[in-house]
Amino acid sequence: MAKKQTPLRIIPLGGLDGIGKNMTAFEYGNDMVLVDAGLMFPDDEQPGIDLVLPDYSYVLENEKKLRGIIITHGHEDHTGALPYLLMDLGRKVPIYSSKLTLGMIEAKLQEFKLNSPKFREVKNGTHINLGVFSIDFFSMTHSIPAALGVYMRTPAGSVLHTGDFKLDQTPIDGVTPNYQAICRYGTLGIDLLMSDSTNATRPGFTQSEAAVGPQLRHIIKNATGRVFVASFSSHIHRLQQVCDAATAVGRKVVVTGRSMVNNTKIARELGYLKISQEDIIDAYDVKDIPDDKIVVLCTGSQGEPLSALGRMAAGEHKSFTITSDDTVIISATPVPGNEKSVQSIINSLSKIGCTVYDRSNTLVHVSGHASQEELKLMLAMTKPRNFMPVHGEAVHLRAHAKLGLKMGIKPDHIFIADNGDTLEMRNGKVSWGDPVESGVVYVDGLSITDADPIVFRDRQKLASDGIVTCVVTFAPRSKKVGDVEIACRGVSFSSDEQLISEAQDVVREHVSVTAGKDGTSVDMLRKNARNSLSNFLWSKTHTRPMVIPVVMEV
Amino acid sequence: MAKKQTPLRIIPLGGLDGIGKNMTAFEYGNDMVLVDAGLMFPDDEQPGIDLVLPDYSYVLENEKKLRGIIITHGHEDHTGALPYLLMDLGRKVPIYSSKLTLGMIEAKLQEFKLNSPKFREVKNGTHINLGVFSIDFFSMTHSIPAALGVYMRTPAGSVLHTGDFKLDQTPIDGVTPNYQAICRYGTLGIDLLMSDSTNATRPGFTQSEAAVGPQLRHIIKNATGRVFVASFSSHIHRLQQVCDAATAVGRKVVVTGRSMVNNTKIARELGYLKISQEDIIDAYDVKDIPDDKIVVLCTGSQGEPLSALGRMAAGEHKSFTITSDDTVIISATPVPGNEKSVQSIINSLSKIGCTVYDRSNTLVHVSGHASQEELKLMLAMTKPRNFMPVHGEAVHLRAHAKLGLKMGIKPDHIFIADNGDTLEMRNGKVSWGDPVESGVVYVDGLSITDADPIVFRDRQKLASDGIVTCVVTFAPRSKKVGDVEIACRGVSFSSDEQLISEAQDVVREHVSVTAGKDGTSVDMLRKNARNSLSNFLWSKTHTRPMVIPVVMEV
Repeated sequence: MAKKQTPLRIIPLGGLDGIGKNMTAFEYGNDMVLVDAGLMFPDDEQPGIDLVLPDYSYVLENEKKLRGIIITHGHEDHTGALPYLLMDLGRKVPIYSSKLTLGMIEAKLQEFKLNSPKFREVKNGTHINLGVFSIDFFSMTHSIPAALGVYMRTPAGSVLHTGDFKLDQTPIDGVTPNYQAICRYGTLGIDLLMSDSTNATRPGFTQSEAAVGPQLRHIIKNATGRVFVASFSSHIHRLQQVCDAATAVGRKVVVTGRSMVNNTKIARELGYLKISQEDIIDAYDVKDIPDDKIVVLCTGSQGEPLSALGRMAAGEHKSFTITSDDTVIISATPVPGNEKSVQSIINSLSKIGCTVYDRSNTLVHVSGHASQEELKLMLAMTKPRNFMPVHGEAVHLRAHAKLGLKMGIKPDHIFIADNGDTLEMRNGKVSWGDPVESGVVYVDGLSITDADPIVFRDRQKLASDGIVTCVVTFAPRSKKVGDVEIACRGVSFSSDEQLISEAQDVVREHVSVTAGKDGTSVDMLRKNARNSLSNFLWSKTHTRPMVIPVVMEV
Repeated sequence: MAKKQTPLRIIPLGGLDGIGKNMTAFEYGNDMVLVDAGLMFPDDEQPGIDLVLPDYSYVLENEKKLRGIIITHGHEDHTGALPYLLMDLGRKVPIYSSKLTLGMIEAKLQEFKLNSPKFREVKNGTHINLGVFSIDFFSMTHSIPAALGVYMRTPAGSVLHTGDFKLDQTPIDGVTPNYQAICRYGTLGIDLLMSDSTNATRPGFTQSEAAVGPQLRHIIKNATGRVFVASFSSHIHRLQQVCDAATAVGRKVVVTGRSMVNNTKIARELGYLKISQEDIIDAYDVKDIPDDKIVVLCTGSQGEPLSALGRMAAGEHKSFTITSDDTVIISATPVPGNEKSVQSIINSLSKIGCTVYDRSNTLVHVSGHASQEELKLMLAMTKPRNFMPVHGEAVHLRAHAKLGLKMGIKPDHIFIADNGDTLEMRNGKVSWGDPVESGVVYVDGLSITDADPIVFRDRQKLASDGIVTCVVTFAPRSKKVGDVEIACRGVSFSSDEQLISEAQDVVREHVSVTAGKDGTSVDMLRKNARNSLSNFLWSKTHTRPMVIPVVMEV
């Protein structure tokens, strides 16, 4: 009997249940390579959580096999889990990425006091071997410079992973996707294509980043006062276009907002953002410069109240007070869930009376992800034997799968996976493997914990109904109930002293009856206190705050 | 000296700080008329609140003057405060509106056990006198049938209030806006135009409701399984188009979801929704009918988890389980803030594998509000001397004001007001008057309360950080501190017994030191317990849950 061939296992640990926390492990025998280590920002369903990470237990369990971590580009949904992963790993694993991406990662790792990581700079055309993995990097275009795609060959077959991308023929730095390489890999043979699905429901082509330039120039040129531009701080090409438009009309650029200051600094040092030292000035030096000679690059494009633009709109920024003579450009699109916050800032700016441009009235933003025609083009260039849509919500993965069908890929060669599902490749053939442990972990202060639905349920209940604590003292020997104290937070009757005094009487009365009986436990008294208080409050207020009963034996 | 002329006071109590809770009082001497009495649904900033109402204290204080309440149409942002207002009013005030609007209001009032209200049906062309107010009603088109605009004349001048509107030349019931009346009022003279600003930032014309029909017919005709259509239950014309498309191809219509059942019932009884009894069937009778002969009209177009579509997408609906053979049409647009919930339902449906149509891929919805060209047309037809944009957020009111400027209204004849600001009209001239009490009140269970920012701040803190209650017993005579009990909710360390035990020790130790000193008050002990616990938890977990300290003297 022939020995069963070792498979290449493709193990997505994140990125298939929403936009964010991208992470995929590739494992062949004793070698493992990780592509991306991203985070996701929490939403209303996870109140109070700082960050959401993919559960990478599988990587830690197979740590000895891990030959390297490849990062496709510098967005946090591809890099943000790295500090946590590196802290959890027992040894230094080399990190492969482009110069800019490594520069951004380095700054982040320093915040975690993770020094001297094993950085290995790669770029378009770089070839590396990691164990049995033979890996080529190629340029891609995205809403951050220096994005890379990955082509990897193993004894079991080959995989092309696009990373996040759009197909931009006129990117600001002139570095187009490496179509020649992609087509060459297509000719060499791609057994599995893993391709970005974020915009798979959008018809047509995504517009080039260059399309935004004329509008920015037009607005900045014609503005009579200061111009404030809020954008993603990692969108270096957008920032470059703003800087170019500003300096073209003799305006100086001021940078404000922590991540904007950090990222422009890194991008300038590494040569990705080009603006001469004399054209970029400090916020404290602004007062000597006329308003029509200033452009302010700031954070806050997502409506964050504490961002630079958020503070300015609220009149609480330390350096800038926006007036009706100013112009504000929101050069971004709200990430789903942020629509109301962005609208709230626009309303505040409207009240100030300044001129506001955003995507609803001007072409001041284009997406960084490929639309349907680009995704089909990618499928046509790569001619993959098997196809796995990645990076997207359920609806995006399925829309992308449909594009695959249209492009002639057979239904049983298309794999719509959940995080933790695995694929196995043998001789270029792909089939489902056994799932691995997966899921999410939450970063909440210092603790990194598994999902605890009770914590979230409690927090949502606390938020919607408030809380009432009820303390009862009880003397077990005399079976007497003493003082009852009630403390409330987040309830509208907090200051209704009469109601609270009545509530104390009701609890004392009920608990006293129970306490007087034989065989009564403290637990029964606690239950009794909770029920009597809860029922009383419902009857009086038709609200059901959370009740915490505490019985103190004295 | 000539006696100062009595002014007409225009008093907006809601509708100028966002989309919702529309309410305006018009007062002349001893006569007052109210136009609309709407509510707003709370957002994330108001956790746990059921409803938001305008503060109508001014109406109650001047109750004796109130001659009537005019309701322009049946949407809750124009009718929803009525039950509360009617309960607060000391006497029955007549309510003037169209048959359908009164039908919907009646159903709502019955839920509040408010019976036999003083309903006065009016319609296009109706003239009434309320005190000195001479009032004419005229037809408008909107996303609900039987919408009315109001033209009122007083000794001080005249006002035209559009209500919510679009200018639809091909509405489903054939009842176009009464352009003849509007132009006649324009000729008679309109001293103040109050016009709907909701879509004032949108260029062009809003498409006719009739534009949706062909798509609905096409989808329903070509579907092979069941078709589920989620829409606003009050959008009778949309429902009519769905019913027509269904019956045209021999499909029966099933209605599910509480408000959908209620509103279709009212609309059919009053003759606004036309479908024969045999074509509308009960959910329980569905099982005898083939899938390709069914269309299900359901609630859930806003992604509400407990709505009919929400339950179906989660596989939890009692009558329907959606399969991959079914088609779902979301014939609506998400109200701002609901985008993520709607997307979440679309993702669940995608996983089931059914075909989903929504506004992102098909023309299955059009807005009910006038875009810029229609707003300009309204200004051209009415030729107002003064203009007050109403119904909108800050950005909409200001965009509408700009349209007014473009149409030749002088800047000082345009009034952008906040709720509670007042205008005074004398001889057709308008100026700012003194503001009145205004704001919002919250309905939270039975209690109707003023805004209490502390309650919301506490709730948000509870939601993000959780709560820890700490009870300390203290014997004043011996100055001894006894048991310390700690109870937590919504914190990730709830089950960490060692941490909690350490925390108890820390509190006991700190409080004991303070208790041992002379002149220590219970308040000091409480503060001490809070601070020591809070600092301990921060040092151990880097979280800051809310701490409620209770000191029990024993």
